[in-house]
Amino acid sequence: MRCRNLERLAEGRKLFLKAETFQTTGSFKFRGALNAVLSLPAVEADAGVVTHSSGNHGAALAKAAAVRGVKATIIMPEGTPRVKAAAARAYGAEVITCPRSGGMAAREAAAAAVVAETKATLIPPYNHPAVMAGQGTLALELLAAVPNLDVIVVPISGGGLASGVAVAAKALTNGRILVIAAEPRGRDSKPCAADAAASKLKGEIVKSMPAPETVADGLRGQLGSLTFPVVRSLVDAIVVVSESEIIDATRLVMERAKVLVEPSGAAALAAVLSPEFAKVVDGVEGGGEGSSKKKKKAERVGVVLSGGNVDLEPLFAEMMKSSGVKSKK
Amino acid sequence: MRCRNLERLAEGRKLFLKAETFQTTGSFKFRGALNAVLSLPAVEADAGVVTHSSGNHGAALAKAAAVRGVKATIIMPEGTPRVKAAAARAYGAEVITCPRSGGMAAREAAAAAVVAETKATLIPPYNHPAVMAGQGTLALELLAAVPNLDVIVVPISGGGLASGVAVAAKALTNGRILVIAAEPRGRDSKPCAADAAASKLKGEIVKSMPAPETVADGLRGQLGSLTFPVVRSLVDAIVVVSESEIIDATRLVMERAKVLVEPSGAAALAAVLSPEFAKVVDGVEGGGEGSSKKKKKAERVGVVLSGGNVDLEPLFAEMMKSSGVKSKK
Repeated sequence: MRCRNLERLAEGRKLFLKAETFQTTGSFKFRGALNAVLSLPAVEADAGVVTHSSGNHGAALAKAAAVRGVKATIIMPEGTPRVKAAAARAYGAEVITCPRSGGMAAREAAAAAVVAETKATLIPPYNHPAVMAGQGTLALELLAAVPNLDVIVVPISGGGLASGVAVAAKALTNGRILVIAAEPRGRDSKPCAADAAASKLKGEIVKSMPAPETVADGLRGQLGSLTFPVVRSLVDAIVVVSESEIIDATRLVMERAKVLVEPSGAAALAAVLSPEFAKVVDGVEGGGEGSSKKKKKAERVGVVLSGGNVDLEPLFAEMMKSSGVKSKK
Repeated sequence: MRCRNLERLAEGRKLFLKAETFQTTGSFKFRGALNAVLSLPAVEADAGVVTHSSGNHGAALAKAAAVRGVKATIIMPEGTPRVKAAAARAYGAEVITCPRSGGMAAREAAAAAVVAETKATLIPPYNHPAVMAGQGTLALELLAAVPNLDVIVVPISGGGLASGVAVAAKALTNGRILVIAAEPRGRDSKPCAADAAASKLKGEIVKSMPAPETVADGLRGQLGSLTFPVVRSLVDAIVVVSESEIIDATRLVMERAKVLVEPSGAAALAAVLSPEFAKVVDGVEGGGEGSSKKKKKAERVGVVLSGGNVDLEPLFAEMMKSSGVKSKK
């Protein structure tokens, strides 16, 4: 999608919006989940799949399993909004709740119990080769539609989308394209809230403990053993965005492009509209042997709006209390 | 666009959403305005165009004039939201304000003054052959994409969209297709609030005085001398929808289809989801000589989401106070 109104706010860059909000299950997560499920040998697939995710990956895996006609079990912590469990059940999945107080360990234990009992295959949300490759199909489609992009901007959390897109986009353009990831700074300003940026800077995985509080609740994941090396090598830079930049971007997508996105899904646009973006895309060198060393200007920017699953009331409340400086431009 | 979630709420009918919210200037009005401006002889076009509209037609005419490179003057009553005047000016139009207290007469007088002074051509919002024909291009596109629709549902106000779509759709399908219009009942329950339905019933134009109060503020127009005969002959039925049905539909489009529409733009979906719809589409006979006399079931329904220009805060407020019965299904 194009939106001239948004382009005026982005220093006149041409923005090519990849609206995954219209994807099956409402987010890009269906790409990776479907690839993972379809990649399973028949005997494994027949035993079903399992994951622990209250978010978009859970719904995506439920739907992907339905496509193949196998069983999905989704572990969700107690207190997960009922609408999310209902969505997974609507796709035919079994939903098992586990104690919220147990944190990630309780979820992993519940998933392990399902695996032990049913021989189902665990499909993690991002740290999995087929999931990463599946997310990369987004870049295949975007570059097929718009071959001469200068930059692709994606949100980053666990790094599944960022790594899949980076591998595909760099390969297709012989390293010419820039891949920029957008990460929320979080509500507090502890140094490690933006853990992907910190990890890239340090050259090893830096965990943010506890996970950062942010309105972009889909972006609280941490890089994994498989995603981090790809992010380190192929993502050119990580732009850290504030809570108000994320809310403003969410509002702008609705107001100008008329598309509903969840705050996590607007983080890439927030990065493009942030003051830091021009510095980053003009300062970072593209990879590839043939690339010139002089600074380049990113004129054609692919922006991934990664999902649109959001409860409207809390979103409206966030938007109405936000100053909306950008939206008044 | 398709949306399985909405189809489940529509008795399993297949819904083909024509999202004019993504049209240039954010509504279908650009179709008629552009056709009218491009249809003018050069000597008339050079003198410019004028209209009195604070709504989508004003912005559409401003942009259409810019496409042809001629001047547009838009008359708006005092107190029109600044954002609307700003939008028209952004397209290069001159905006002239007139006293709100003078009502339509004051607006017409202001437009007449511009015509007298500049020899500009008045392009009314709907009661104009080129405007009506331009709106009909929506049906051309929709039927080119989905040839075998059983029904097209459009919102109705002055009848420009309904008449243009009805002429095109009936011609293309040899009268086979049903054309249904959706009209708001209004906040009060005076018998004449739904004046298009009343006009069709009575066989002559029935004016609603004063114009009905409704959240669908783009649908307060009254049928014109050119639109009424077409609506009378070619629109098969008018479904009257309540305020809460309109708000629920607006919310559902956002929540399920992830598209922002203004309440006026959701009226057609509100009609499709209303209890009356099944009665109407199963009871009304299609025109055309070859149509069978037995009742038919409308399986494939084109639904026009006519525009998406709306101030977010008042919209959020309406949605949050609405019961949202449908949206909880």
